Amino acid sequence: MSRDVACIGAGVIGGGWAAWFLARGFDVVAWDPAPDAEARLRRTVDAAWPALTELGLDDGADRSRLRMAATLGEACAGAVFVQESAPEDLALKRSLLAELADATGDDVVIASSTSGFPMSDMATEARDPSRLVVGHPFNPPYLIPLVEVVGGEATAPAVVERAAAFYRATGKSVIEMDREVPGFVANRLQEALWREALHMVARGEATVDQIDAAITEGPGLRWPVHGPCLTFHLAGGEGGMAHMLDHFGPSLLAPWTRLGAPELTGALRDAMVTGTAAEAGARSFADLVAERDRAVIAIRRAVEAARAG
Amino acid sequence: MSRDVACIGAGVIGGGWAAWFLARGFDVVAWDPAPDAEARLRRTVDAAWPALTELGLDDGADRSRLRMAATLGEACAGAVFVQESAPEDLALKRSLLAELADATGDDVVIASSTSGFPMSDMATEARDPSRLVVGHPFNPPYLIPLVEVVGGEATAPAVVERAAAFYRATGKSVIEMDREVPGFVANRLQEALWREALHMVARGEATVDQIDAAITEGPGLRWPVHGPCLTFHLAGGEGGMAHMLDHFGPSLLAPWTRLGAPELTGALRDAMVTGTAAEAGARSFADLVAERDRAVIAIRRAVEAARAG
Repeated sequence: MSRDVACIGAGVIGGGWAAWFLARGFDVVAWDPAPDAEARLRRTVDAAWPALTELGLDDGADRSRLRMAATLGEACAGAVFVQESAPEDLALKRSLLAELADATGDDVVIASSTSGFPMSDMATEARDPSRLVVGHPFNPPYLIPLVEVVGGEATAPAVVERAAAFYRATGKSVIEMDREVPGFVANRLQEALWREALHMVARGEATVDQIDAAITEGPGLRWPVHGPCLTFHLAGGEGGMAHMLDHFGPSLLAPWTRLGAPELTGALRDAMVTGTAAEAGARSFADLVAERDRAVIAIRRAVEAARAG
Repeated sequence: MSRDVACIGAGVIGGGWAAWFLARGFDVVAWDPAPDAEARLRRTVDAAWPALTELGLDDGADRSRLRMAATLGEACAGAVFVQESAPEDLALKRSLLAELADATGDDVVIASSTSGFPMSDMATEARDPSRLVVGHPFNPPYLIPLVEVVGGEATAPAVVERAAAFYRATGKSVIEMDREVPGFVANRLQEALWREALHMVARGEATVDQIDAAITEGPGLRWPVHGPCLTFHLAGGEGGMAHMLDHFGPSLLAPWTRLGAPELTGALRDAMVTGTAAEAGARSFADLVAERDRAVIAIRRAVEAARAG
């Protein structure tokens, strides 16, 4: 049985995906019209392989199971899954996704790595857009688990589910969005922080160095273990998110960033409190603190060792 | 010679500071008018001690070197350094800092843990505001290295330097700001991300769970090792920050967050490129990628182990 994954576009992201799927034991067929694409792709895979080996390779995982196709059709011929990682150019994505839909069978999911276009905007030229879905990774795709999956208006709901299930089966952490939002979730959060950083540099309020240190020596040490909501849940002490919002809510009105805050309505407060409680689950305040402390210590050591080489 | 550090206010932040200074081998004298302050403080120190022990205690570090003062004056009597961590109430901070300035000698630095007030606003009632400085930690102060140090209009520049030197000598990572900016650096970055998160929950675009997963499974795994600038330096491939800004600059205009972006002027572009190059220093693109990969693998393992207990 064919285990081909087709990687369409073999730049940094496409190459990272190729490395990931090879490490998971798939045959990977890549296609990229650039003349030096194959050499670059093999360099990308070789650069990723030590990390993937360290994380553990699946049975049969082998870099020799990567081959370059001469045409898009050849790349798609035996594919069970297509990952499109072409440049972020809307016209290009539109025609490419239409071609991919034509070149694949009715049971093949075609996922786009786009970092920003909604599928509804990219699927406009496809005769059958039902199998087109966004599968947005984070760089590098072979190392960062997150994939955000979301369909367009014409995507079949079952295709969204199949894409999510496929990624999860390979070991990815999937966020399945039920609506299209520009930039998806993680990019929006990261971009808000990035824009504030650019404003600060533009105004001479902080230097590049200070901005990076502010994150790596500060909140960045907590974020691999607890996201922003659980982090602020702990900031509320034993009273958790409810206490945090009720007590520090007014600071949302402070000019602490150039991004205006939403009104802290009762509904928003309750959504934050209920959602955070659900996420914390059986973990008590003390459990979460202990977990964070263990993680931050280990993270600090990991970073120190990585920097030392 | 006295090695007292006075911790004024013994809540979560003040208690975290007390634990930190005890672990560094200081005598700590705390003052807090709340009736249950001492019991709470000792619980906070006890909770922090295993983490501090794991990270390594300095010679003579001992929890028994913590004592509670009956009055603010008693707490300050032998102090070489005062860390104020009272509630975020401007009127309270004003009168408290004025009292602390009166109760301490001419060579004692008084640092406020405030998370948002500029010292110029807090120092208005002090007869001698020259020794008042902000020393803003991140929670928990015994574990997160970052301290942001900035003076007010009336703070002596030498006091800012002495505060920074004192924190650095205890092992803190210090950002010394040369101007007052509401929220300081790390809070502004964190708050921009948080506000975007609240907007998304308020609009039903993402759940609490998805927002936390978007960070912990995504960019949060890179931020302990490379801040946002170095991260995007790598996103530019071999061309680095310059390529990233020249190529992806237009995405600053995309509606990927509710925070408007600054104009990408030539000056801003150059500041980002020069600053990032300086930060990268002798580390090549390949060096930085290898460093990131080593760190992310170790961070993922650290988090997994911490979650497992």
